[in-house]
Amino acid sequence: MNIAVDAMGGDNAPKVVVQGAIKASDELGINIILVGDCESISVELEGKEKRGLISLYHCREAVLMDESPLKAIRNKKDSSIRVAFDLLKNGKADAVVSAGNSGAIMAAALITLGKVEGVERPALACVIPGIAGEVMLIDVGGNVDCRPAHLLQFGIMANAFATSCLGMQEPRVGILNIGEEAGKGNEQVRIAYELLKNSPLNFVGNVEGGEIFSGLAQIVVCDGFIGNVVLKLSEGLAASVSSRLKKGMSSSMTGKTLTLLCHKFFKGFQKTLDYAEYGGAPILGIKGVGIVCHGNSSAVAIKNAIKMAVDYVENDVERRLSEQIAGFHAPKF
Amino acid sequence: MNIAVDAMGGDNAPKVVVQGAIKASDELGINIILVGDCESISVELEGKEKRGLISLYHCREAVLMDESPLKAIRNKKDSSIRVAFDLLKNGKADAVVSAGNSGAIMAAALITLGKVEGVERPALACVIPGIAGEVMLIDVGGNVDCRPAHLLQFGIMANAFATSCLGMQEPRVGILNIGEEAGKGNEQVRIAYELLKNSPLNFVGNVEGGEIFSGLAQIVVCDGFIGNVVLKLSEGLAASVSSRLKKGMSSSMTGKTLTLLCHKFFKGFQKTLDYAEYGGAPILGIKGVGIVCHGNSSAVAIKNAIKMAVDYVENDVERRLSEQIAGFHAPKF
Repeated sequence: MNIAVDAMGGDNAPKVVVQGAIKASDELGINIILVGDCESISVELEGKEKRGLISLYHCREAVLMDESPLKAIRNKKDSSIRVAFDLLKNGKADAVVSAGNSGAIMAAALITLGKVEGVERPALACVIPGIAGEVMLIDVGGNVDCRPAHLLQFGIMANAFATSCLGMQEPRVGILNIGEEAGKGNEQVRIAYELLKNSPLNFVGNVEGGEIFSGLAQIVVCDGFIGNVVLKLSEGLAASVSSRLKKGMSSSMTGKTLTLLCHKFFKGFQKTLDYAEYGGAPILGIKGVGIVCHGNSSAVAIKNAIKMAVDYVENDVERRLSEQIAGFHAPKF
Repeated sequence: MNIAVDAMGGDNAPKVVVQGAIKASDELGINIILVGDCESISVELEGKEKRGLISLYHCREAVLMDESPLKAIRNKKDSSIRVAFDLLKNGKADAVVSAGNSGAIMAAALITLGKVEGVERPALACVIPGIAGEVMLIDVGGNVDCRPAHLLQFGIMANAFATSCLGMQEPRVGILNIGEEAGKGNEQVRIAYELLKNSPLNFVGNVEGGEIFSGLAQIVVCDGFIGNVVLKLSEGLAASVSSRLKKGMSSSMTGKTLTLLCHKFFKGFQKTLDYAEYGGAPILGIKGVGIVCHGNSSAVAIKNAIKMAVDYVENDVERRLSEQIAGFHAPKF
């Protein structure tokens, strides 16, 4: 299997990306194509053991984190994101992993690969370590102004991924809303509620903000506007909690001794909250496999994202997703 | 000053409400009218010192937390929420404080008092202890399907409150969005961005989910759907963090000794995150003063909410809000 990894994407590229790629090829025994500026990638590979499984694919450009996604992908034809997806399209790679500008990754996937038949809007699904196991939040990819039918499709696509790659059987699907009872929420959500209820998904109803990570639902459906806010708010709170804890600990108590004692605990604690550590978010509904990583990803997160790409390919998620989307149009639903 | 307090509202009513009312009358020297079932309120007052400032106003009904707000307020004319607002309307009280069904409180305020002239939709503003001082999030009161002009008005109303009661001068006003740059977001938010930018408010632009509590903006404007999700998510995360911390501390380290050492720190930490401790949320845009408390409010929170009601009355927020709303319709803006 060949995974094209965007070596220029992310806050600490190419260093951390290269480290993650080495880890992945070591642990998974797969071929990695590092796409980007050969010279700077080579610097990072230097001194490392000879890695037969890692190859380089040179390109001259990179999309910046704050660039306008669509414009960047259209204009920068030799950017690492665009080139990685071209490799996929031309059969030279089986999947793309990138920690770059997520809008640009979504745009490149759409432009080069296109949508699975029947899918109206591809979506980005984030897998989060919830209190009682993994929780998928979909969409976090900026699909704003969604129609209710889009939300239904998000649920179907996430269901296909969760059953294929996360080992979930009939995952509990909920819709993000402002109350527990049916009939709550805005028009979009009220209609989507009915669509989901009448689908063969294991729909458990409304999920309130406080219950997103509780495990009440394993798949939480929302539009990309609110999904983005939820994700960033959670990350922001996690970071703020960690910093307040450290500050509070070292100032209010017996100082350094206690901080040292607590260090191990904090590390574990932060990790469970730190989505950057957790790996990637699959783009669901495109013809092909694209995994988006947090810009701030660690080498472990990059490795985990590559692992997710491998799982996606091996479990044939695209075919299953395609079948489930097609099935939902049948009159029986 | 006379504050009508809904003695039957909240998870621990009337006990905690009565305790909060006693605290408030003690500390603030104001008259409190406890509205609700006289018998059960009397039980809670029994054995307490004679409180000349607290009086009872009997009513037979109470709105349950899960009742349909509008229906409950229309049908239960002798419910504590409804009766408290009737007291306000008839000049027997200057403000209402309730920890009951927030939808029902909003409905009762609207039905009995009506809207300030020019206000399209009254909104609920939550005051949150942010990292760099207080932050107002508006709307958290369930105004779903808002138009951009509603969001503008939310900003104006919050501005009137913040400058009157929170000691803020030209508070920084932001709009909750999914990117920093102008032009981001859904249609509603993109238009509201322009309206806010062209208003005399001190508009600082988009605020992303991770920045809500950072202090970037002191007033964060959003529709009631997303405001509700943000608030409940934050509360849920705070609770989950506290419980994980306690669990992690006592299991992974030197056990009880450390937990005891940390106890004081945790208590302080939890308090800064616990919005239930923090007091009330003002309903902005109604003709009169209504403060909504968290259902789970402690006696201190009830007292703080009563204090907020007093501030609201004393600082004449309604008049200022009314003037600012009227001013924004003037051609100069």
